[in-house]
Amino acid sequence: MRIAVDAMGGDYAPAEVVKGSVLAAREQGVAITLVGPPDKINAELAGLDTGGLDIDIVPTEEYLVEGEHPAYALREKRQASVLVAIKLVRDGKADAAVSAGPTGGVVAAALSVLGTLAGITRPVVGGPVLGFAPNMLVLDGGGNVDCRPEQFLDFAVVGSVLARRMLGIENPTVALLSVGVEEGKGNAQIQEAYPLFKASGLNFIGNVEGYDLATGKANVVICDGFVGNILIKFIEQFGKLLSDWLDEKLSGKVDAAVLDDLKAELIAKTNLADVVGGGPLWAVNGVACVAHGRSTAEHVAGTIGEARKALEHDLVAEIEAELSKVRGTLPDAGGAA
Amino acid sequence: MRIAVDAMGGDYAPAEVVKGSVLAAREQGVAITLVGPPDKINAELAGLDTGGLDIDIVPTEEYLVEGEHPAYALREKRQASVLVAIKLVRDGKADAAVSAGPTGGVVAAALSVLGTLAGITRPVVGGPVLGFAPNMLVLDGGGNVDCRPEQFLDFAVVGSVLARRMLGIENPTVALLSVGVEEGKGNAQIQEAYPLFKASGLNFIGNVEGYDLATGKANVVICDGFVGNILIKFIEQFGKLLSDWLDEKLSGKVDAAVLDDLKAELIAKTNLADVVGGGPLWAVNGVACVAHGRSTAEHVAGTIGEARKALEHDLVAEIEAELSKVRGTLPDAGGAA
Repeated sequence: MRIAVDAMGGDYAPAEVVKGSVLAAREQGVAITLVGPPDKINAELAGLDTGGLDIDIVPTEEYLVEGEHPAYALREKRQASVLVAIKLVRDGKADAAVSAGPTGGVVAAALSVLGTLAGITRPVVGGPVLGFAPNMLVLDGGGNVDCRPEQFLDFAVVGSVLARRMLGIENPTVALLSVGVEEGKGNAQIQEAYPLFKASGLNFIGNVEGYDLATGKANVVICDGFVGNILIKFIEQFGKLLSDWLDEKLSGKVDAAVLDDLKAELIAKTNLADVVGGGPLWAVNGVACVAHGRSTAEHVAGTIGEARKALEHDLVAEIEAELSKVRGTLPDAGGAA
Repeated sequence: MRIAVDAMGGDYAPAEVVKGSVLAAREQGVAITLVGPPDKINAELAGLDTGGLDIDIVPTEEYLVEGEHPAYALREKRQASVLVAIKLVRDGKADAAVSAGPTGGVVAAALSVLGTLAGITRPVVGGPVLGFAPNMLVLDGGGNVDCRPEQFLDFAVVGSVLARRMLGIENPTVALLSVGVEEGKGNAQIQEAYPLFKASGLNFIGNVEGYDLATGKANVVICDGFVGNILIKFIEQFGKLLSDWLDEKLSGKVDAAVLDDLKAELIAKTNLADVVGGGPLWAVNGVACVAHGRSTAEHVAGTIGEARKALEHDLVAEIEAELSKVRGTLPDAGGAA
């Protein structure tokens, strides 16, 4: 298994990216292709122990930087490292690509090079949002900010496959996030999606409310990327704020080590993206992963680990098969509805 | 100042409602009209000290119960206590009405009897959502789940008036809740609202993200009632979950009184509706307040207190004046845009 890594993506590139790639090669046994300027990459590799590891370099001098308009930058920089890395996947020279570069750029590169699975217009991003509810995945957490009800079904298919394969839940429950549990509660989008979900063959349990996000009432919770993004960011920042608050309230009143553990656990459970670092853009026709911009070596290695899991479970093929099955239930597909 | 109270609204009516009304009469110096079956009300009053208080009864035997369809129930029960209470406001026999009955029923009664301020179709609900950010109001937290961009402006006007009068912030900052701070980030709704806000004359500081909800970056944060409802409910339940988690983690490791205080503060700061109990339906043409269904006497008294503040600050008139000013900035009003 070979992972193409955009050596120039992220705030701490290339140092942390190269270090994380070597870490993944060592600990996960994957082969790595580093994509970027060879002199810069070799300078980083020189300080690391790469003995016995399968690491090569595909050279390119161009790369994206934060703040550029993604589509424009990719037109100008035809040899941008993220683009070259993803092309290696398309051309069968790597099994997956990983980049901590600007998310918009990675998404645009993945879309233009690999495309999406039938009918999906943008990649879907999702996963657990709260460590207190580890068996609940929320989708979309990404860029799908205006969704048609049928898109919600696509998210639910992706989420169900992920819950089954990554969480080991045989028949994951699926719910729509809304303002009340009864059918008919919610905005127009949710009201239209509800009957589609009922007819979908998914293990649909109806609507869940904000309360249920905390308790993880469903394994797969569906919302648009607008709601998902706001929730994820709120949880991250609220966790940090509460950690500071606990510090202020409990310093000197509880053993320092107990307090440190408590704060660390709270941060870990509310900042899940920081724990792993990133993951695949789902519904892309291939495995392309985004790690967050502040990625350290551990985050890069963590994201490579997510790519590896997606490949081992053959998730792209399974999502594609499930999508076509569920699509057949839509009214205009003459389906079971 | 006389408050008409729906004596039969809420899970603990009439006992807690009558008790809360007497409490408010005593502590806040308001006159109270209790609306409901006189025998039931008098039975409750008999056990309370009402000496020197201005409390009267307007009799009616009908009232709404949880689970009825609000509009249908109000058509059937023309003498429902909530309807009678709100009619006292319309007829100048009370200054404000308070009910802990089913929210949908209170809203429907307020809409049919008092109506809304020009052009607004549904009442707006809003206030602080997080005790850690007490100077941030989020609107809509209510039933406006599908909004046009111009409605967001209405919410912002209500929020600005509330921040000025209730929080004492002279020139409150206003922001749109979105997925990125730059203009152009967000769903279609937010993208359309942004230029309207820029031209509105409000103290608009742009978009805020989920992160900024935790830190209270703006005094008035605007979202639709779908997002607002999900956020508020999530915060409430997450606070309870964290309180249990702290209990589990810290029991026996910190002084029991310190732990109890910590948990109580966390619950109070995440369950703000439970602290006060309820408040006015804004943009209704009059002061009609909803208290939550589980209201105790303290919650009823708290909601009466919110009604009193709305009256003292003459908020209905101020909101109406500000609405018409900001409406004049809309492009189709030939305004300053």
